[in-house]
Amino acid sequence: MEMLLANPGSTERTRVRRIPELAVRDRSALHAVLDAGLVGHLGVADAGRPYVLPVAYARVEETVLFHGSSASRLFRLCAAGVPVCFTVTELDGLVLARSAFESSMNYRSAMVLGHCGVLHGRTKERALRQISEHLMPGRWEEIRKPSAQELKATAVLELPLDECSLKISADGPSDEPADRELPVWAGRLPLTRQWGDPVPAEDLDPAHARIPAYIDRWRQRTS
Amino acid sequence: MEMLLANPGSTERTRVRRIPELAVRDRSALHAVLDAGLVGHLGVADAGRPYVLPVAYARVEETVLFHGSSASRLFRLCAAGVPVCFTVTELDGLVLARSAFESSMNYRSAMVLGHCGVLHGRTKERALRQISEHLMPGRWEEIRKPSAQELKATAVLELPLDECSLKISADGPSDEPADRELPVWAGRLPLTRQWGDPVPAEDLDPAHARIPAYIDRWRQRTS
Repeated sequence: MEMLLANPGSTERTRVRRIPELAVRDRSALHAVLDAGLVGHLGVADAGRPYVLPVAYARVEETVLFHGSSASRLFRLCAAGVPVCFTVTELDGLVLARSAFESSMNYRSAMVLGHCGVLHGRTKERALRQISEHLMPGRWEEIRKPSAQELKATAVLELPLDECSLKISADGPSDEPADRELPVWAGRLPLTRQWGDPVPAEDLDPAHARIPAYIDRWRQRTS
Repeated sequence: MEMLLANPGSTERTRVRRIPELAVRDRSALHAVLDAGLVGHLGVADAGRPYVLPVAYARVEETVLFHGSSASRLFRLCAAGVPVCFTVTELDGLVLARSAFESSMNYRSAMVLGHCGVLHGRTKERALRQISEHLMPGRWEEIRKPSAQELKATAVLELPLDECSLKISADGPSDEPADRELPVWAGRLPLTRQWGDPVPAEDLDPAHARIPAYIDRWRQRTS
């Protein structure tokens, strides 16, 4: 029952399109997975103990950008250049096989190994705008930009897409021939994201109650 | 712009209901977040380098169970008792504030720190059934159970819910008073999971084409 594959280096069955670490040749597939996610998980070890933190991010060219509090101990550790692992996983559904062992999930997962660095060729405000544009395209132009104090309170890190692996499981169940005779339904149950109706802030001035057009466009996005 | 909080120990603004590490007093809130997730991210350090892997799991009482390939190097490392971090994050929406800095996300995130151990008081097959029942309740009874060889190929780990932190951000934007005058819509855009229509396996015998009732029940589940 390999619900999700635990190790990018392990041997396992087919149907997971595996692009090895250190050699993600299909850059567009890697970019597509990173661009589809909204939250990633950043791993960092401190004195041998791992920590896994949810972070907002954006992929820009061959780099992932993310931000956090300048006061965060783990973020400062990342900024100092310790090894990190950044993983984005989009769950696309359940794979319902006739056996427990072949039951699994459809998913796309990108893993980036490396070291965070300071921003190259972009200011902190530009990096924050790029993260905002990934999550909320069109919104940045309308909202108040960060003040100098807010920028100081925000750490922004850059992780190059050098050492990456990509795992994609998109197919239905592949049961053993003998199991195909079992009297049980088999197939896939797809899963997508669904955006709800916008909920106005309690203190929203009725003069500004019109929902911006870009929000309608976001709601067309699926994972 | 604290889209997501980077460090469970950092100081930051309100609206994130923070239950400190080492003292999650509200066990039912912790359990609810772990029970809502389908995939978690397991962090483990190998020679000082962190790895973050997506894993299927189940919360059973005061324990998280997950499984992987017995052949996996990182899973063997976890089984040997090195420190791990297991994080489950459910994204509930975007928080659209009038400033970039206050823009953020609604989410629930549970982090469990500790050491995996061997199974206590349950067999490997029972643990696999418990993981299956979390993801696909009702299905285990219908499908072929793992063979001895399949059980051997599967590693199951148990992580006690001893050292945990929980972060929940559920409210709308909280803008600076001066920003509330800005002529921009503000509020929340909720996000949920949506299950699609079941897709039969290509080799499904038409005699077994009836969709099981439990699948209809799963489709009522939201995140």
